[in-house]
Amino acid sequence: MIRPVAPADHDAIWAILEPVIRAGETLATPRDMAREAALALWLSPDRTVRVLEADGAVMGIFYVRANQIGGGAHVANAGYVVADDATGRGFARRMCAASMDLARELGFRAMQFNFVISTNERAVALWQAMGFAVVGRLPGAFAHPSGEVVDALVMFRNL
Amino acid sequence: MIRPVAPADHDAIWAILEPVIRAGETLATPRDMAREAALALWLSPDRTVRVLEADGAVMGIFYVRANQIGGGAHVANAGYVVADDATGRGFARRMCAASMDLARELGFRAMQFNFVISTNERAVALWQAMGFAVVGRLPGAFAHPSGEVVDALVMFRNL
Repeated sequence: MIRPVAPADHDAIWAILEPVIRAGETLATPRDMAREAALALWLSPDRTVRVLEADGAVMGIFYVRANQIGGGAHVANAGYVVADDATGRGFARRMCAASMDLARELGFRAMQFNFVISTNERAVALWQAMGFAVVGRLPGAFAHPSGEVVDALVMFRNL
Repeated sequence: MIRPVAPADHDAIWAILEPVIRAGETLATPRDMAREAALALWLSPDRTVRVLEADGAVMGIFYVRANQIGGGAHVANAGYVVADDATGRGFARRMCAASMDLARELGFRAMQFNFVISTNERAVALWQAMGFAVVGRLPGAFAHPSGEVVDALVMFRNL
């Protein structure tokens, strides 16, 4: 089930976000970001946020927002996080499909990911399978916690 | 002369921004954006802002900021506006050079433009002359006031 966020979800959302933020391998978020800052970012008023619930628990979170304002406001941006212990169950795919439906409902005509870490191969492959094309490559734009500086990708599709 | 913004500059900054925002051809900003919203955006605390002064008047404004947080925080973003009646005098070039110096001083190691309108050929050519490469093309990402939907470019260079 995909539904809006309730205040009672905040603990579950933080439990999903914290290990991913601390690992720092897939999101451009400071690895030491505190709970309140992370929740403020993810639930900021310019985002429409949904959670994926399965087996009575929140397993993932995603948002949709305008990627630009003015003449660029018809293109959505979205982001997704699946709980570390819930990967491999198709939840990212379901959230991505739901985010495109939500974006269409909100009137967006395309969707753009600004910063897909190139080493996150599973994500890159999934977004390609979901119809997104790599339309840009940002050389060395991500300082991976491994110590290497790696490329980030810009991905795009019409809705 | 390139210098920080003083409160007394706000009228001059708005005089520069307003016609460019109203025209809506080069910036992804709502064409009806009000003065206070535009100043709040351009002078927001996450930006380091400078003005270019010549002949005793403010002729241009630019900002430098981190384009991403966390693992992407070593890449700067910047934006520039030259007064409509001061184009063709090399001010955009000087501001771009100054923005790269400022970005280096602030510790950034690269600079990215997220949304260069493809029809803004003078800007594209200038940024290329300043060492920026087109690293991405966002298809139809900008609703031009002409009624056409045009591509936007992602441009990038190391510092």
